[in-house]
Amino acid sequence: MVIDPRINISKKLYPMKNTYIAKFTYLYLFLLIGTFQASAQTTQVDQERLATLIAELSTYGKNKDGGSDRVAYSSHDIAARKFLIEKMKAIGLDVSVDFAGNIIGKRAGSNPSLKPIAFGSHIDEVPNGGDYDGPVGSMSAIEIMHTLMESETSTQHPLELIIFTNEEGGVIGSRAMAGQLSAAALETKSSSGLTQAEGIKAVGGDPDKILEVKKVKGDYAAFLELHIEQGGNLEREQRQIGVVEGIVAIEWWQFTFKGFANHAGTTPMNSRKDPMLPAAKFILAVNETVLSYEGAQVGTVGKIEAFPGAGNVIPGEVTLNLELRDLSSEKIWKIYADLEAKAKTFAAASNTKLSIVHQEVASEPALADPIMQKAIEQSASELGFSTMYLPSGAGHDSQEMARIAPIGMIFIPSKNRISHAPQEFSSTEDIANGANVLLQTILLLDKELK
Amino acid sequence: MVIDPRINISKKLYPMKNTYIAKFTYLYLFLLIGTFQASAQTTQVDQERLATLIAELSTYGKNKDGGSDRVAYSSHDIAARKFLIEKMKAIGLDVSVDFAGNIIGKRAGSNPSLKPIAFGSHIDEVPNGGDYDGPVGSMSAIEIMHTLMESETSTQHPLELIIFTNEEGGVIGSRAMAGQLSAAALETKSSSGLTQAEGIKAVGGDPDKILEVKKVKGDYAAFLELHIEQGGNLEREQRQIGVVEGIVAIEWWQFTFKGFANHAGTTPMNSRKDPMLPAAKFILAVNETVLSYEGAQVGTVGKIEAFPGAGNVIPGEVTLNLELRDLSSEKIWKIYADLEAKAKTFAAASNTKLSIVHQEVASEPALADPIMQKAIEQSASELGFSTMYLPSGAGHDSQEMARIAPIGMIFIPSKNRISHAPQEFSSTEDIANGANVLLQTILLLDKELK
Repeated sequence: MVIDPRINISKKLYPMKNTYIAKFTYLYLFLLIGTFQASAQTTQVDQERLATLIAELSTYGKNKDGGSDRVAYSSHDIAARKFLIEKMKAIGLDVSVDFAGNIIGKRAGSNPSLKPIAFGSHIDEVPNGGDYDGPVGSMSAIEIMHTLMESETSTQHPLELIIFTNEEGGVIGSRAMAGQLSAAALETKSSSGLTQAEGIKAVGGDPDKILEVKKVKGDYAAFLELHIEQGGNLEREQRQIGVVEGIVAIEWWQFTFKGFANHAGTTPMNSRKDPMLPAAKFILAVNETVLSYEGAQVGTVGKIEAFPGAGNVIPGEVTLNLELRDLSSEKIWKIYADLEAKAKTFAAASNTKLSIVHQEVASEPALADPIMQKAIEQSASELGFSTMYLPSGAGHDSQEMARIAPIGMIFIPSKNRISHAPQEFSSTEDIANGANVLLQTILLLDKELK
Repeated sequence: MVIDPRINISKKLYPMKNTYIAKFTYLYLFLLIGTFQASAQTTQVDQERLATLIAELSTYGKNKDGGSDRVAYSSHDIAARKFLIEKMKAIGLDVSVDFAGNIIGKRAGSNPSLKPIAFGSHIDEVPNGGDYDGPVGSMSAIEIMHTLMESETSTQHPLELIIFTNEEGGVIGSRAMAGQLSAAALETKSSSGLTQAEGIKAVGGDPDKILEVKKVKGDYAAFLELHIEQGGNLEREQRQIGVVEGIVAIEWWQFTFKGFANHAGTTPMNSRKDPMLPAAKFILAVNETVLSYEGAQVGTVGKIEAFPGAGNVIPGEVTLNLELRDLSSEKIWKIYADLEAKAKTFAAASNTKLSIVHQEVASEPALADPIMQKAIEQSASELGFSTMYLPSGAGHDSQEMARIAPIGMIFIPSKNRISHAPQEFSSTEDIANGANVLLQTILLLDKELK
């Protein structure tokens, strides 16, 4: 018990004989001072309550592989949303669902002229995903509200907790809020099988009124998001908190090499127009080309399909998806130009035809606001956590929110750099650290922002 | 009218004055002699009726691209089979469906001690296939039976018309007849989505009694198959009829490269275990390695799939299919050994794991019987057709039938070497030529075989 220096301080202040009562008094004083120090310095979230909430959420959509099938608009997603809305109401928040299906929990501030400080994340997952990706930030946001309510900590700014609709399937909720959701995007199919419009309806939104969801610059004082880091930098560098500098831009292209479907047994090797060959060369070129540039850019071919796709037929067509990500759009398009030229050469060499369709995903990088970055860094440091500045290779709702508000993102470590998979894991302590940094950042910004 | 030399002959035999009656008589005699010559020399199929039957069959499963989706066991296959069974009954054949789902149409012979001469092909297609592959041989077989019935041409041997079950998906019907269909093979999935066992049931067979379908050497006097040539040799050499020397062996292997599924945005390029890379290297190695050997062997990767198959996820697994074909099994396994070694190297270099599953397709080459080859050549020559001897790079039901009967195969030209694709085409005349050669070969063998 005497390993804590505060005990020594209390001993000096209250010299007592070593009796049972003295011992009890020392303990009582230790606890009292400890609590006072903590509340003076920081209001802390309830680590166990937060862990329990994340575990409760994980039961919605858990599959036999241990993964989460809580894709947006699925029955699991709908049930989990209902559970969380009740939770948020029970805490005392003013809960509503906007026309895009975003769940919003409001808490009034003491100064009615100030705009809200918003924070949150998402709870939907990729198919067979993990339990931490969006849930860490979303459940921490609920726990922070719970802590503020319990401790009766008031803020000048109103606070808004946002759980965004369908992040994994195209940051739908935050795109709507940023006014970036086109009518065409509403008609695309989501992983659930429903179109975005159908899905938004299913979670209580109204796609016909989606434009009313749009916010503009000035509507929010700030937007903050806590998330697991998915690049392994914090783990490798053994840091507790990541201060995000910005979120990379993402571009997708569908490459189609068109040859000629023919009988695999009778068509001589040198008479073929086999689109599998340029596709294979292209996959290798993506890896080589992306690696040939300096920096942290990434390029991925995650999907490939051959048509008709039979063992005894030379494919007539092979399609594949190219994804490029970097903080610099210029670099992305430079790499793309390289790859396009190579693909053309490969197509010509194998007597096939190339066509490319560009698909917009997140064409502009989103930089975190310098004031937010500084507030996060300061909050983490005051709590005694090690930090590092880093970019986010993953897209997040914050990327869309950056169009309408100054944003800040906090990363916590994710074990073995795994995400979007059942093995995804962050420790209870790391999660609580992140939640406490987010809480302190909110309180710090509440003082600093006008 | 006098351009035909037979008219001159008739003029000499019946010198007449140039009157209306004389003209009419010359015409009558010309037709009579013509008919007599044709029937004395050959009984001919009805070219137009045959073309119509092929066109009628093509309507079952025709898709919007003009291709045929009449994959075995599909609703299109089942409807087409029903149509043909009615057709065969109407012609006067004794029609039955065996336990493997093969449709068999019997016609008795005059000598009850002789074994049947069998002939036929299949009507199922690869997904998005053409209208001629199996249909040419199957519809010609029906037309031949029709012609024999109509012309009341009797044979000593019984005749058996066979339309085999699911040729494209593993020569299922003929394998059953050759006693080569294992219980495991019955449980494999077919292109229809059904297992072979389920599919066989769907077309009226009984997988539990499949062993009873088995024939042994001596059960058939011969098996003959007419088919389109899929290698372009007849077209290139401008020959009308191909006399097939043998059918190549075929082997399939499923290669699976297993890496680790991870976030495509956050996982640095050099920390990935991306199975797409060894898969791409392997595809290129198949082409290079197969070409590096002397001869006409072919190797194909016709199928590839990445899991989970999303644009923003590094695949955890890539599977692809390798097919090798040659008249020499030894050469196939030598090339395979080369490729297996290379695949292991590629897997190791990209930190992925390799697993390979061998799938039996047609492990032994099948040589055509010399007597059958000679009978085909003689029949074609007597009909005035140009011929060439050639191997078949494609697998056929004949390959399985060769285990239990002397086989012969007749090829006709296929335009632009296209098969297993919507653009597949053989002319009405070429098809009739092939049918007539098959008919004459049957009649010739009927005389020669004991």
